[in-house]
Amino acid sequence: MIYLDNAATTPLDGDVLRAMSPYFTQNFGNAQSRHAMGRSAAAALMSARDKTAEIFGCKSDEVIFMSGGTEAGNFAVKGACLARGKGHIVISAIEHPCVYESAKSLEERGFEVTIIEPDGDGVISGEAVERGLRSDTIFCAVMAVNNETGVIQPYEEIGKICRERGVFYYCDFVQAVGFLPFPKYASAFAVSAHKFYGPKGIAAMCLKSGSRVVPFMDGGRQERGLRGGTSDVPSAVGLAAALERATDGASGDAVNKKIAALSERFIKRVEGEIECAVVNGKGRAPSIVNLSFEGLNGANILDCLDLKGICVSNGSACSAGAPLPSRVITSAWGENRAKSAVRFSFGKYNTLEEADAAVDALKEIITNMK
Amino acid sequence: MIYLDNAATTPLDGDVLRAMSPYFTQNFGNAQSRHAMGRSAAAALMSARDKTAEIFGCKSDEVIFMSGGTEAGNFAVKGACLARGKGHIVISAIEHPCVYESAKSLEERGFEVTIIEPDGDGVISGEAVERGLRSDTIFCAVMAVNNETGVIQPYEEIGKICRERGVFYYCDFVQAVGFLPFPKYASAFAVSAHKFYGPKGIAAMCLKSGSRVVPFMDGGRQERGLRGGTSDVPSAVGLAAALERATDGASGDAVNKKIAALSERFIKRVEGEIECAVVNGKGRAPSIVNLSFEGLNGANILDCLDLKGICVSNGSACSAGAPLPSRVITSAWGENRAKSAVRFSFGKYNTLEEADAAVDALKEIITNMK
Repeated sequence: MIYLDNAATTPLDGDVLRAMSPYFTQNFGNAQSRHAMGRSAAAALMSARDKTAEIFGCKSDEVIFMSGGTEAGNFAVKGACLARGKGHIVISAIEHPCVYESAKSLEERGFEVTIIEPDGDGVISGEAVERGLRSDTIFCAVMAVNNETGVIQPYEEIGKICRERGVFYYCDFVQAVGFLPFPKYASAFAVSAHKFYGPKGIAAMCLKSGSRVVPFMDGGRQERGLRGGTSDVPSAVGLAAALERATDGASGDAVNKKIAALSERFIKRVEGEIECAVVNGKGRAPSIVNLSFEGLNGANILDCLDLKGICVSNGSACSAGAPLPSRVITSAWGENRAKSAVRFSFGKYNTLEEADAAVDALKEIITNMK
Repeated sequence: MIYLDNAATTPLDGDVLRAMSPYFTQNFGNAQSRHAMGRSAAAALMSARDKTAEIFGCKSDEVIFMSGGTEAGNFAVKGACLARGKGHIVISAIEHPCVYESAKSLEERGFEVTIIEPDGDGVISGEAVERGLRSDTIFCAVMAVNNETGVIQPYEEIGKICRERGVFYYCDFVQAVGFLPFPKYASAFAVSAHKFYGPKGIAAMCLKSGSRVVPFMDGGRQERGLRGGTSDVPSAVGLAAALERATDGASGDAVNKKIAALSERFIKRVEGEIECAVVNGKGRAPSIVNLSFEGLNGANILDCLDLKGICVSNGSACSAGAPLPSRVITSAWGENRAKSAVRFSFGKYNTLEEADAAVDALKEIITNMK
């Protein structure tokens, strides 16, 4: 089995699991309990929060743990917009469904939504965002790295524009960890542990002090009163440990370089050996390579690769059950490109041999299809 | 250390952790992915869902996994009420903060809320609920077992009343697993794995077919489109494994009997040896014993027990940071009883010796305080 779907999820790193282990059966307390077991859990949670904050470059009380990237997107969009009651929302056409659908649900509740289309490189430009902003714009969301194309968005430029205009800016940072610096100008950004070899079911949001939101989960005073519920201490510990590994100067850079080498090799061979293939997007994070195969059906290619034991994706996994062509690819390059798109996403456990095997398999499949 | 705060959280059962283990680093796929790794994860998720449904006595597609009991409470209250747009809500005064505060947040959004007070035994009677219902009542929430007192509520009677009146009835079943049969008449009920030796960060709701709700997390088609986000497969597997152990005829009954024996012994000794102690509530699940100590301060007793290495609680852990006396105890027995209340909650890893040691410690502490 060759797993090239690391943008959908990654295996839990064995070291991260070992870091989590003491908090399952031994140091298992409720971090809100007022006794030794509770304090011990609270200390572990605080340490995970401090470590995350240090890596994010923010204050500890600006870090909010929650159940995942989808909760983060829902919380950011709904939390910020409902705190303002009404107004105009700007999101990109390439946002993750959690942001896109949350904005749509607010549209039904009386908010106005403007959707910014990407350019021919798959980029949401700062100018395009600026043109979309109005005097009554209260919220803007443009992700750092698109989850389908890997295209890096100008999130710092957009952050500065939003800050100048007093607009809450949410930057979905889920696919960017380890590859790019954390946002300095966003009102909030979030990462999801299972995208960087941490556990599923946990995300961390950086919500800058003074960024006004309403709570997403009522009840309990956890997470500054914004997100009630018993703290998932083992998962928070796992997120912090995984984040440290992914962003550490030495190990993070090594992973980054390895993944870049894999995808460069992969692209070079694809471009040289598969005539109908085109890479969707320019200026990409090295982890994601989205290819379209002119005249072919992406889902069929995916299924053929699957039969050969190679795991890839079309569209984001979150909507992989849906039969529609990708909204993201369609928005930048039209429906035909979207129908023939396949996403290959590389991770730290992949090898050059696997990248080569994927190209070889692709060549064979495409030859058979033609 | 003697841990008598099992109502706040329980240690993860080693067997449950072993059941989860393959899904961390090996079978780690995204259950929504269209390839072998994804299908393998989806199969594990389906198996966990089927097992949970069988135990709940419902259909598999009526089981919705989410991040915890607090999310379940938020989802039930907001999901059901917002689906109906407006109307009257009935909740008990002893609901968990996730239900109570969610109802309060809807009150600010134009819904009307009636709060039903408990009687002198700590019970929300069916008659009291019936008196609270109006022709425009859309939603009712009364929990099965109160998390502070352990008092069992007439949830089947209330369920029948609500069903007859066409009112959505949510039954928080978080503290009842293993002790009571699952609700037959509720529109929805939920359990949280970490309360019965499963992992933190996962809950399962039974949402009966035809019970109309709006999604709580937008984006993604997971969980019948009601709760987006990458499925936390290891945790779902853990929940199902823990639920099986807690409710199995043999092991579940043994745990139940053991816990009943512990709390009976504890109460008998307390009543015989500590004059100022009174048990709050009648008709309790065996796991929870809430005591008030006339004229004394519950928080001080808790702290003294903590110094002796005995972990107990006052109020629910979720609001343990809050300095106010328990809303639940106050509602049934007044503020003085609430100020002197301490909750002892027993679990399957406790021993008779620990129950005895707790009474001995209590006696000493109270003698010193007087």
